[in-house]
Amino acid sequence: MESDIGFKAALQEAEQGSSEGGVPIGAALVSADGKVLGRGHNMRIQEGSAILHAEISALNNAGRLPAGTYRGATMYTTLSPCDMCTGACLMYGIKRVVIGENKTFLGGEEYLKQRGVEVVVLESEKCKELMKKFIAEKPAEWNEDIGEE
Amino acid sequence: MESDIGFKAALQEAEQGSSEGGVPIGAALVSADGKVLGRGHNMRIQEGSAILHAEISALNNAGRLPAGTYRGATMYTTLSPCDMCTGACLMYGIKRVVIGENKTFLGGEEYLKQRGVEVVVLESEKCKELMKKFIAEKPAEWNEDIGEE
Repeated sequence: MESDIGFKAALQEAEQGSSEGGVPIGAALVSADGKVLGRGHNMRIQEGSAILHAEISALNNAGRLPAGTYRGATMYTTLSPCDMCTGACLMYGIKRVVIGENKTFLGGEEYLKQRGVEVVVLESEKCKELMKKFIAEKPAEWNEDIGEE
Repeated sequence: MESDIGFKAALQEAEQGSSEGGVPIGAALVSADGKVLGRGHNMRIQEGSAILHAEISALNNAGRLPAGTYRGATMYTTLSPCDMCTGACLMYGIKRVVIGENKTFLGGEEYLKQRGVEVVVLESEKCKELMKKFIAEKPAEWNEDIGEE
């Protein structure tokens, strides 16, 4: 699964975010026929953004798409999606969410499943390492990113 | 309640969106002590954005805030929040969501309540009229905005 084009793109985005000094979370939206529709990473620090989590960035970069395109798509993300990103996947009817890891943070996975979305967790050590390094260096920024004090 | 500074700001934003030919939904995030922290409107048409719903625009325009600021805040929105905007309010621990109307579209109100958020619906005729006019003129854009075909 980790060789999947979508997960590779998400991980590259997370690494790009890390190299920029940002929250190292990446995401990619992949169509039913395997094309990357949009990819992005968390931009809280780089753009001072409270809303550009990785999944939101990927959706933003994908631009306006017909409803049916989302319905067959998979969202790849390096970290379990927060409530906002969970909700974004639900609003667009994305059918599958593939998650790099959920040990650093556990988001809305159960709610996704309740609403009929397939959830896959890869337990990627690379994803965990990126987050571990970031949280050790910038704990306040991490808490801010998930709305915690 | 409709004289509330937050609802006024949200309605002004919706009217601004309408005057721009956009989806006429506005929102405003108001602090515990009554200050407008951020306000915005749906930018799907104006910016080709798949993520800038009104509430997301308001959060974006508010910028990076400490977690505690969100916790005491109220999100005003002219239309019942979709799953994404519901999730954004939950992620930041916003304590209260005031909604102009929920007849045109009913979003995540029950889920907000389940998660402990106070929900108020104003049944504003002005909000309904803005949506009625927009949907009559641009039905495809409205369906796209809520991920429906």
